[in-house]
Amino acid sequence: MPSLLLERARRIRERLDRLALCTEEPGRITRPYGSRSLGDAYALVNAWLAAAGLRTWADAIGNLRASTARGRPRRLLLGSHLDSVRDAGRFDGPLGVLIAVDLAEHHRASLSSPWPFDLEIAGFCDEEGLRFHSTYLGSRALAGVLDPVVLAETRDADGITLGEAVRRFVGDSAPPAALPRDGLLGYVEVHIEQGPVLEARGAPLGVVSGIAGQARVAWEFIGRAAHAGTTPMALRADALVAAARWTAELHDFARHRAAEGLVATVGRLEVTPGASNVVPGRTTGTLDLRAPLDRTRHEAAMEILALGEVHAANQGCEFFARVEQETPAVRCDLGLRGRLLTAVRAAGLPTAVELPSGAGHDAAALAAAGIPSAMLFVRCRGGVSHHPDEYCSEEDIAAALAAMDEFLLALAAESRPKNGAASKIPDLAGLRGTNS
Amino acid sequence: MPSLLLERARRIRERLDRLALCTEEPGRITRPYGSRSLGDAYALVNAWLAAAGLRTWADAIGNLRASTARGRPRRLLLGSHLDSVRDAGRFDGPLGVLIAVDLAEHHRASLSSPWPFDLEIAGFCDEEGLRFHSTYLGSRALAGVLDPVVLAETRDADGITLGEAVRRFVGDSAPPAALPRDGLLGYVEVHIEQGPVLEARGAPLGVVSGIAGQARVAWEFIGRAAHAGTTPMALRADALVAAARWTAELHDFARHRAAEGLVATVGRLEVTPGASNVVPGRTTGTLDLRAPLDRTRHEAAMEILALGEVHAANQGCEFFARVEQETPAVRCDLGLRGRLLTAVRAAGLPTAVELPSGAGHDAAALAAAGIPSAMLFVRCRGGVSHHPDEYCSEEDIAAALAAMDEFLLALAAESRPKNGAASKIPDLAGLRGTNS
Repeated sequence: MPSLLLERARRIRERLDRLALCTEEPGRITRPYGSRSLGDAYALVNAWLAAAGLRTWADAIGNLRASTARGRPRRLLLGSHLDSVRDAGRFDGPLGVLIAVDLAEHHRASLSSPWPFDLEIAGFCDEEGLRFHSTYLGSRALAGVLDPVVLAETRDADGITLGEAVRRFVGDSAPPAALPRDGLLGYVEVHIEQGPVLEARGAPLGVVSGIAGQARVAWEFIGRAAHAGTTPMALRADALVAAARWTAELHDFARHRAAEGLVATVGRLEVTPGASNVVPGRTTGTLDLRAPLDRTRHEAAMEILALGEVHAANQGCEFFARVEQETPAVRCDLGLRGRLLTAVRAAGLPTAVELPSGAGHDAAALAAAGIPSAMLFVRCRGGVSHHPDEYCSEEDIAAALAAMDEFLLALAAESRPKNGAASKIPDLAGLRGTNS
Repeated sequence: MPSLLLERARRIRERLDRLALCTEEPGRITRPYGSRSLGDAYALVNAWLAAAGLRTWADAIGNLRASTARGRPRRLLLGSHLDSVRDAGRFDGPLGVLIAVDLAEHHRASLSSPWPFDLEIAGFCDEEGLRFHSTYLGSRALAGVLDPVVLAETRDADGITLGEAVRRFVGDSAPPAALPRDGLLGYVEVHIEQGPVLEARGAPLGVVSGIAGQARVAWEFIGRAAHAGTTPMALRADALVAAARWTAELHDFARHRAAEGLVATVGRLEVTPGASNVVPGRTTGTLDLRAPLDRTRHEAAMEILALGEVHAANQGCEFFARVEQETPAVRCDLGLRGRLLTAVRAAGLPTAVELPSGAGHDAAALAAAGIPSAMLFVRCRGGVSHHPDEYCSEEDIAAALAAMDEFLLALAAESRPKNGAASKIPDLAGLRGTNS
């Protein structure tokens, strides 16, 4: 690994450590939308961006924005989010923003003058939804698809509306968040994987094929509470036993469909009355279902919910389920994906892994709104994320920098006018039709 | 059913309704140890006992006590408990006390003079343990086996020691709780079944063969919390899936051993972190195991805990279990059981069902302390107990009165001196050796 790359990665690590100090809770990272700590993080990143020669601003939803602002006809957007979950790790979000900052700094020196497109950077304000239980607030606003009704109707735990929080955070006169689409080459986001796949495959980087669709189901088994000592096994309608059999079986079901990327998780399960000497009369919980193809997920949901009926009937219970939230799958842009894979290989990295993302990202919101989007995942230690132990090595960050350097150089070379001919830069937006 | 019996049953129902108004929580029955409402209940029962000609007192632990006090050389103890769980039914406990009161009233008129033994009645003060999480406080004190250390070391939710609560409830000068053993024929308790067995067999009454031993186990599966979207099924260590498979399998295990009276219940199960989008990293819960024979229960515990290890290993998890509480099985006294069965038949009731009690009762504490004890169960609607819907019909209460009448008459006839010969009453205490 060239030492300059490691030097850049080390500086990114130092900046991640400085951003980690911007928090609402001393000793752990908690940076919700509109908070003082998010403002502190913006001030740090803003200074680095300005020092790199970019024009910076906060947009009307509260994203931190920057542009090389040279008036090029084309623009490429890089970025990720700067908010966090409660007690977060330091990589989830900021890593992608700081890699974008580094790329602006690094390529400014060598390539600013003949650079054939403006580089824009977004530090999204609310990907995690910690404060408002919102999803992709910043990126949906940037994509121009945020319904203004949400501003008036969404409230935080203190009853403050999102609209009021936005006003307090960025005032009334910030420029619009929506990104003009003309000349937009697309959006590329570098992000910690937040899963164990790259580590298991021994690859520092992965190119994301798409972002899984997701359904969140609330379910309930109703049996009959009874005395644990006096009710013979054969006369019970044990709502936990029914839920337990189903939980085990749906796990196996998803495991058998691993090749289709299906994952199924019962993450919450609550037993009523929940006393050691009472046969459970009611069990409620959640089912999280994700798959790269919506058809896979829909079929799985139907089969798994049918299994719930079967296990309920076998125990003399009833089963109810309701889809509470559903997000369709999105595919990453084929052109950008191909360029990222080529760049990973050009950077001399061993394998070019493609993988679906089971987690949602700002890129999903942009892709769903028709903006060509792609993601580069950085290997994560032990698959741990949303936790203080979250970790990417400096070597892997350096690998991401190397790949992104290659990506930018190739894109620039490809689109630079030759012999006075018109720009040959392909209109990546034309590939939109390949998104599902 | 003779109309006099139904009349007596109806009066018991009316008294149960009056006792139900003695509560700490208006609208539902909640009568913990030492409460004003328990004192109110004592005042009512005390008045009925005194009207029946019995001498009454509160003993040093706070049981309501009564005796015909005619100085007979032999004594028979009847009773049950007057405290309740939170949001209780009206039959659990008071039914047995009020049947004892009725028997004292009814047989006083016809049999008081030649009655060959004194009748004693106990209204136990703390069978449910609602306030102090204690077990059989009143009956253990009556049996003379309550360790005084418990008084100083047990505290309620407000930090009040049991000793202080006893002082506030009955003062310092109450007579000792311990029952003299000499001349004691034994203890007979009538109680609502609290289970569905008699209803399933179409029998109003059941004679209890013994009270199941019980183990309460706290268990824990430790896996690895992980992102529900990014962690492939094969790379998970899902602590809920492991617990679910085990819960289902131990249910089947107990079901296959139904003939041995084994019951196994996971009544509490808690998932950490318990978020819909996180693979469970830890699952804790309880296992309640009961069987009429301790050997059955011990063998089942070993097999079930071994299954926990297997299911943990299959999911890449760890399994820990700890027996938190263990109560040995007790057998009801063979002589008293036989007399109760004969009495049920003599009362003209169709079947004489014998069944083990899966729930604990004051009779278990007395039997464990060597006092010959027996129980008569009254059929319960739908197996429901510890719930406002708890219900015994007046016909079934009348059946219990008929059987208890026969029981008392037979015991009295058997022990009445004939032709000047010495009392032939058998020393039931001599059968103690048959208790396990």
